[in-house]
Amino acid sequence: MNLTCSSLLGFRQSSKPAHLHLRSRILFSLLRRRRFNMSAAKDQANPSNPIKKNAHPFDRAQIEGLLIKRFFYAPAFEHYGGVAGLYDFGPPGSTLQSNILQEWRRHFIIEDEMSEIETTCITPADVLKTSGHVDKFTDWMTRDSKTGDIFRADHLVEAVLASRIAADRQARGIQASSADLASNNLAKKKKLKSAPVKLSDDTLARYHSILAQIDNYTGPELGDLIRAENIRAPDTDNELTEPVEFNLMFESQIGPTGQLKGYLRPETAQGHFVNFNRLLEFNNGRLPFASAQIGKSFRNEISPKQGLLRVREFTMAEIEHYVDPSDKRHEKFCEVRNHKLKFLPKDVQASGRTDLIELSIGEAVERQIVDNETLGYFLARIDLFLKKIGIDPTRLRFRQHMSNEMAHYASDCWDAEILSSYGWIECVGCADRSAYDLTVHSVRTGTKLVVREALRETIEQTISVPVFDKKVFGPRFKKDAKLIEDTLSGFDEARLNCLSAELESKGVTSIITSNNGKFEVTADLLKIERRTIKQNTREYTPNVIEPSFGIGRILYSLLEHCFWTREEDINRGVLSLPPPIAPVKVLIVPLSGTDVLRPLVKKISNKLRKAGIASRVDDSNATIGKRYSRNDELGTPFGITVDFGSIKNGTVTLRERDSTKQLIGRIDEVIEIVREICLGEENSDKGWELACQKLEEYSGVQDLE
Amino acid sequence: MNLTCSSLLGFRQSSKPAHLHLRSRILFSLLRRRRFNMSAAKDQANPSNPIKKNAHPFDRAQIEGLLIKRFFYAPAFEHYGGVAGLYDFGPPGSTLQSNILQEWRRHFIIEDEMSEIETTCITPADVLKTSGHVDKFTDWMTRDSKTGDIFRADHLVEAVLASRIAADRQARGIQASSADLASNNLAKKKKLKSAPVKLSDDTLARYHSILAQIDNYTGPELGDLIRAENIRAPDTDNELTEPVEFNLMFESQIGPTGQLKGYLRPETAQGHFVNFNRLLEFNNGRLPFASAQIGKSFRNEISPKQGLLRVREFTMAEIEHYVDPSDKRHEKFCEVRNHKLKFLPKDVQASGRTDLIELSIGEAVERQIVDNETLGYFLARIDLFLKKIGIDPTRLRFRQHMSNEMAHYASDCWDAEILSSYGWIECVGCADRSAYDLTVHSVRTGTKLVVREALRETIEQTISVPVFDKKVFGPRFKKDAKLIEDTLSGFDEARLNCLSAELESKGVTSIITSNNGKFEVTADLLKIERRTIKQNTREYTPNVIEPSFGIGRILYSLLEHCFWTREEDINRGVLSLPPPIAPVKVLIVPLSGTDVLRPLVKKISNKLRKAGIASRVDDSNATIGKRYSRNDELGTPFGITVDFGSIKNGTVTLRERDSTKQLIGRIDEVIEIVREICLGEENSDKGWELACQKLEEYSGVQDLE
Repeated sequence: MNLTCSSLLGFRQSSKPAHLHLRSRILFSLLRRRRFNMSAAKDQANPSNPIKKNAHPFDRAQIEGLLIKRFFYAPAFEHYGGVAGLYDFGPPGSTLQSNILQEWRRHFIIEDEMSEIETTCITPADVLKTSGHVDKFTDWMTRDSKTGDIFRADHLVEAVLASRIAADRQARGIQASSADLASNNLAKKKKLKSAPVKLSDDTLARYHSILAQIDNYTGPELGDLIRAENIRAPDTDNELTEPVEFNLMFESQIGPTGQLKGYLRPETAQGHFVNFNRLLEFNNGRLPFASAQIGKSFRNEISPKQGLLRVREFTMAEIEHYVDPSDKRHEKFCEVRNHKLKFLPKDVQASGRTDLIELSIGEAVERQIVDNETLGYFLARIDLFLKKIGIDPTRLRFRQHMSNEMAHYASDCWDAEILSSYGWIECVGCADRSAYDLTVHSVRTGTKLVVREALRETIEQTISVPVFDKKVFGPRFKKDAKLIEDTLSGFDEARLNCLSAELESKGVTSIITSNNGKFEVTADLLKIERRTIKQNTREYTPNVIEPSFGIGRILYSLLEHCFWTREEDINRGVLSLPPPIAPVKVLIVPLSGTDVLRPLVKKISNKLRKAGIASRVDDSNATIGKRYSRNDELGTPFGITVDFGSIKNGTVTLRERDSTKQLIGRIDEVIEIVREICLGEENSDKGWELACQKLEEYSGVQDLE
Repeated sequence: MNLTCSSLLGFRQSSKPAHLHLRSRILFSLLRRRRFNMSAAKDQANPSNPIKKNAHPFDRAQIEGLLIKRFFYAPAFEHYGGVAGLYDFGPPGSTLQSNILQEWRRHFIIEDEMSEIETTCITPADVLKTSGHVDKFTDWMTRDSKTGDIFRADHLVEAVLASRIAADRQARGIQASSADLASNNLAKKKKLKSAPVKLSDDTLARYHSILAQIDNYTGPELGDLIRAENIRAPDTDNELTEPVEFNLMFESQIGPTGQLKGYLRPETAQGHFVNFNRLLEFNNGRLPFASAQIGKSFRNEISPKQGLLRVREFTMAEIEHYVDPSDKRHEKFCEVRNHKLKFLPKDVQASGRTDLIELSIGEAVERQIVDNETLGYFLARIDLFLKKIGIDPTRLRFRQHMSNEMAHYASDCWDAEILSSYGWIECVGCADRSAYDLTVHSVRTGTKLVVREALRETIEQTISVPVFDKKVFGPRFKKDAKLIEDTLSGFDEARLNCLSAELESKGVTSIITSNNGKFEVTADLLKIERRTIKQNTREYTPNVIEPSFGIGRILYSLLEHCFWTREEDINRGVLSLPPPIAPVKVLIVPLSGTDVLRPLVKKISNKLRKAGIASRVDDSNATIGKRYSRNDELGTPFGITVDFGSIKNGTVTLRERDSTKQLIGRIDEVIEIVREICLGEENSDKGWELACQKLEEYSGVQDLE
């Protein structure tokens, strides 16, 4: 039974037997598609324990209700009936995302002096053809043969079989497992809640085996399964059509001619690669360096569900770190060497287990569990980042891609997976992509994307060079001859070798020059010869280590991890967002609505603004308790209550969200402490301890709540 | 001769004679299209004086070359031949934009406690049909009848006539004016550089008259002009085809069915309006409040030129400020009352002049030049923002829309225009959009988008109410009857009045219910009656004041304003970006490449990072002078030189970019001064004076440069 393993493979066609792997020979980046697919949720622990104490069982409907009510996010275009997979962020969600991204910038870009870029979403088809997305960035879909309703084939098969297994469990009187609870939403639909029916042991085993490989079936194989297992449309029980491939990119036309096809980028990465030469120059021609980009990407999912976790438009943050393939050490590895992570290596998965190994990254690299220092450095930095913004460390793991799940050019790939009520979700991918991307763009465009390094001493090297028959070449191509020669001289080793093979097999090749001219060059005019030359520079295509973050997934997981309800009242939800990340840091609450307090409230509000602390005034008619509850739901860590004592004594009380404990102090003193906790270097938990040391406890707390 | 005026009207179809204005009766927002069109450049002063001294004449090719070389931005997908109107931002451009946006957030969102949101780029066609974009967001295009090359019709006519006028001037021996220099790029093409030919006075007058109205012609009118003035395709001299309308939105399909058409948003505004009810609730149901959004918008321009000023994908920052239509005062108007702006009011333009009036915003509102306080408040805040980030005050003006240029529902509209080598460019629009947007969405979806306000005393009011013939209604619609009644009861006054008119004229109307059911309701079943009722709440649709920023345009204009060349060497360009906005604040320059200095360089770099100051180390082999020059081009305001004295004495020199003056001080002291200037509240110019007071002058400057 390979159930455990299956649950971890999110990517279709990725763990096929070797004979089905032909496609990957054409160098398509399977990874690209995989990264933000989700692992189905079959092996997770009960995800109901947030960081803070929670006396009540976790209820996803409750937190999702809260998040929409408080406008963290909401389905987009609701008045128009909504569009699946499109969400708008309201003020708290938008600011939370901004704060996460701000921290991301500080943690990655500034800390490691990366080159931030912003490239376009609209991408010409040619570029995505080269990267492989036009041909391979697809899912399989099937239709209800009568109504035409559309389903993603693998998801439907998965949901139906999961519901049959659940029905069998019920019939056998086995309690539903957490895996059942988290299984695909589809399974929860009325038609999928089959009446308790016991399955034969054979059938049950077959179902488990199918689920274990659900990510690996081709379309025709899914079609066979649908017929063999008598899977039908969930609502109507109609037959399903043969699965067909659907490209997940949004297509459009650029300009008015109708001749320039474009797509919305499905990732930001290609925008980095096509700018490699400029980025290299910006970094004085030296490696290693990294480019970073935060921006929107778009995927036209067949049937998006699962809230913010599978959407059609989302914010990514991607780093492309360029490194010498022969030296993947990292200068700052020593700084993280002793940092411990929880690993789920491929060999553990291969043996059908999911137990995590806790190891320092230093040891993991030494023992070759993680391929190299640079990859290891980023894994540690990702772990530090996620914990810093508030991800629960007990619900975070680093899962290695299985050998058959990884594109063949990648030497190693790890996902940071976060556990939520939807299961273990891939939120960050971190892959060593070797030289793939730069190579394919270089081959396609004839532009060298390489690093040149001065060598300390001259070496001899055998390389390919184009040799022209000048006598024939000039007269044949006339004014274009020079341009063709220049184009050929600009080709790198790989391109020349392709060309040589083509000349040999077909006797002719076509050259596209920089002015877009296309020329047929025959074998009698051009030979590619191997020559040994002396060189004092080394030229190579860098390898790329790519940490890639799905911000919406991290944000949603964080919200689940931070959510709990007060013991005394299940309806009082709290979001324990860390103060530096919380959208609003301070709620200012005037004790009464009289005009007497207004000038002081304004003064405090101005002081907070000057100190760079986001605050909000709630001078509504609601009771103080209600006002605080509302802001507990917004994750606001502090409340400052302004009362008549404030006018008389210049003091205010400071309430902490999680403990509801109140302290009292002079206005400036309180603001300084809040500033330290929210914006300073201090850890926020220690920060509150600090506040307790510096400020007096306020005894009036009972009166207010 | 109405040349002056014409140059200011950027929007097609906007200043037509009244009889052509029929279309606007259907409430289409002409403004929406207009905002980021450019004023053609016919009346500008010579834009060659940057803030700083510039001994050499301004040369656009030089600055654009510098910006691309230093990778502020670059044409996207260059290796693939590029795509017109798509640009990528490299590290300095991306960081500069980030810094501008950060300042924008501080200046607008935080200062006025706005609700920041992030809504989707992908927008269903229905929403943009309602807003008017599907029908009217268009330009006219014409083709070369033989090659099929495409031109934007109005731009082509403009360019050809401008080139003929220029040729006439040349023939008459009149020196080319700055207007000629800045005229459309097209005119510079070979075919448009007509040999000097003198025109008759009549022809000349007619050309000027056409140019004066170039933004107002319909497609057929442009077709007539092309024939009458014998305008032909520039490169081939072929005939041109009849102009056809081209919608400027990128179209795509959402989901796999092919039945849900979507567009990329051409502005962020609609995302605000459709979320109005949630935003109102988030603000405790009270007005005024504002929502703000920073994000990408997309316009499929016919033939984009002019660098960053007319692109197909760009970042906007938009504010929608919701206000009671009966009270457009602004609480904080007193804070800006005395702030002076340069106005170009509509009556001045109408009289054919462009002289600016300098007035305090208080006086402008008092004299009713600016319609109301809220609009005035934002104009002043826009002015303050633009100057703060470094826009040259002498090249900034606020131009009012002409009455015939403004959509009829708008009570007032002003553009912040910035002068660059491309002419006066609209960079910020600021319009009072009345209740238009909320009304159309409400009418279309049947969702109330209103504010309810408790009244101090009950009032009597006559309103429209739907009255059903219940006896017939129930049996006719059976289970749907209740839903239809509810839908009708939810309609606001405007919607009910439309309905009443329809029932009266056609005897039938169709109702779309919340579950997307469509029902025909006839006049015998439903009457809309006017009834007088007592009310203790007031219900109204807010008006919207909309400041809308084109960030790329502001960024490019700023770069032009900050650019100059050193007197001693025209090839040494400098970008005098204000320190708080500059992408990198400090260049760290080790005097020699020896390893001895490395630890100290790293220490200083770490200290700067801890202080939140972006820095870069340049330890390349180039001379100190070259390294500084390179960073002058990047706009880096300060250089810290580390030498052997630094190790010995703990001192470094601090070089200021514009003056190249050097001071010397202890490391921590120097860092603190840089921090104050770059991140403190201090004005940056004063900041350097402060530095000069605190640190000693360094006499070694001659040795280094």
